[in-house]
Amino acid sequence: MIRVDRITIIGLGLIGGSLGMALKRRRLAKTVVGCSRKASTLRRATQRRAIDVGTTNAAHAVRDADIVILATPVDTIVPYAKRLARYMKPGSILTDVGSIKAGIVARLERALPTRIAFVGAHPLAGSERRGIEAADARLFDGAVCIVTPTVRTSRAALRRVEQLWRPLVGRLVRMSPREHDEVLAATSHLPHLVSSCLAGAVQPCSRHSAAPSFLEMTRLAMSDPDLWDDIFLGNRHALLGAMGQFERQWRALRRLVQRNDRTGMRRMLARIKRQRDVLRDA
Amino acid sequence: MIRVDRITIIGLGLIGGSLGMALKRRRLAKTVVGCSRKASTLRRATQRRAIDVGTTNAAHAVRDADIVILATPVDTIVPYAKRLARYMKPGSILTDVGSIKAGIVARLERALPTRIAFVGAHPLAGSERRGIEAADARLFDGAVCIVTPTVRTSRAALRRVEQLWRPLVGRLVRMSPREHDEVLAATSHLPHLVSSCLAGAVQPCSRHSAAPSFLEMTRLAMSDPDLWDDIFLGNRHALLGAMGQFERQWRALRRLVQRNDRTGMRRMLARIKRQRDVLRDA
Repeated sequence: MIRVDRITIIGLGLIGGSLGMALKRRRLAKTVVGCSRKASTLRRATQRRAIDVGTTNAAHAVRDADIVILATPVDTIVPYAKRLARYMKPGSILTDVGSIKAGIVARLERALPTRIAFVGAHPLAGSERRGIEAADARLFDGAVCIVTPTVRTSRAALRRVEQLWRPLVGRLVRMSPREHDEVLAATSHLPHLVSSCLAGAVQPCSRHSAAPSFLEMTRLAMSDPDLWDDIFLGNRHALLGAMGQFERQWRALRRLVQRNDRTGMRRMLARIKRQRDVLRDA
Repeated sequence: MIRVDRITIIGLGLIGGSLGMALKRRRLAKTVVGCSRKASTLRRATQRRAIDVGTTNAAHAVRDADIVILATPVDTIVPYAKRLARYMKPGSILTDVGSIKAGIVARLERALPTRIAFVGAHPLAGSERRGIEAADARLFDGAVCIVTPTVRTSRAALRRVEQLWRPLVGRLVRMSPREHDEVLAATSHLPHLVSSCLAGAVQPCSRHSAAPSFLEMTRLAMSDPDLWDDIFLGNRHALLGAMGQFERQWRALRRLVQRNDRTGMRRMLARIKRQRDVLRDA
């Protein structure tokens, strides 16, 4: 375990706050600096032991950091990174936790000065809740963290970012930014979109008339629209591909229902079940 | 609390087994008789305290019962009921736990002799797991149980079935069989179908590359195909209606993704979130 002197987290929402709490709980940094636009968030982050030092001034926050982690909504990552790189010390590392990667990584590799090493990362953990109040030191326990190096990524910086995440998560995976976006379109963005569709289609008159399966299948639809519109649209090409896959299954199932085809229905459900059983919850 | 002398449960799977365990835990019957085609299931049901007496002979099982509960797959309920009614004592009550109601209730009201009172019921609880091993005395805790009387239902029998369920669940609701099927098409059958679609569309190479949201959204796809084909097709008209509702939302969201319409996307997601937030998990 390698301890970092000074880590700065920009954005103290669910992910940034949880990351601060996890880093502090495991003593992975001597000092965790937190930056938020709101003083009240900094106070709560300090109370919740997510940060050691808080500031609303992002330029100050990053100045002496060895590693800066951007934990802000995906559409703000590139502008923040460009602005803050100027204030970061040479040889320091910039990383993020954004849910989409290809666009962010490509733009930052073009825009950032070479004295700053950028490594894209994405821990697969979350909640429909948001903000420092929802933060949880155990949010990443057992989770997968995907890091997305390219040929232009500094190997030393990649190793340091992986060293940072390894003790916090269950498993580290390397993917190219594009592969990340395709995998996430199918396994995260599509399920979110489907959940919203279902919640939009059905309006139970009360919680009491909603079957448990409906509540489970629409939990994701309570996610923050201001975060998810950018994720959906920022990954729209891969998402449209995944939506096409869904539509093929949907049309096949609808045809079986329309034709009252019991044998076909049973066969299709059984095939899908076998496929899903392989991933059965441990 | 009214104690019944003798309750017979036909079918000792997840629901029948859990019901036996719940009845015995709360001492709601002097004797719980269980019937299964397999002797091994009867042994396990006895070990798990789901039944007092077990038999593979359904005619024997129902002979002296005050209440007979059919907990077999939906397509077997009508034939079982018709066959077993002959052996039931006059004035006894037949009820079920099937996930669809209109067809079953209509057919049994035509077919059953008047000396047997039938009351349709459906506790909204379940699991993707099946069988007596998955049974759980607390499966119905806090759940909704829908009873589906018609103008032809004996009021005395209705009250007794409601008395039976009231201590076991969180809430009892009366609906007509048709209303039940429409509500369930939207809040249970549609979510199951959507879950299977999603699991069929996406094949993560391993559990590790599957985001938590994917695992959550596809849990229902592990349900037993042999049960669900009959539920989907037994309620196909209401299900096709619910599928149409889903498709309208889907097309609207797909259009927003295709057009890269951030404002429209945010507005739609926010509207859906507000709708779902009302049902927020307590």
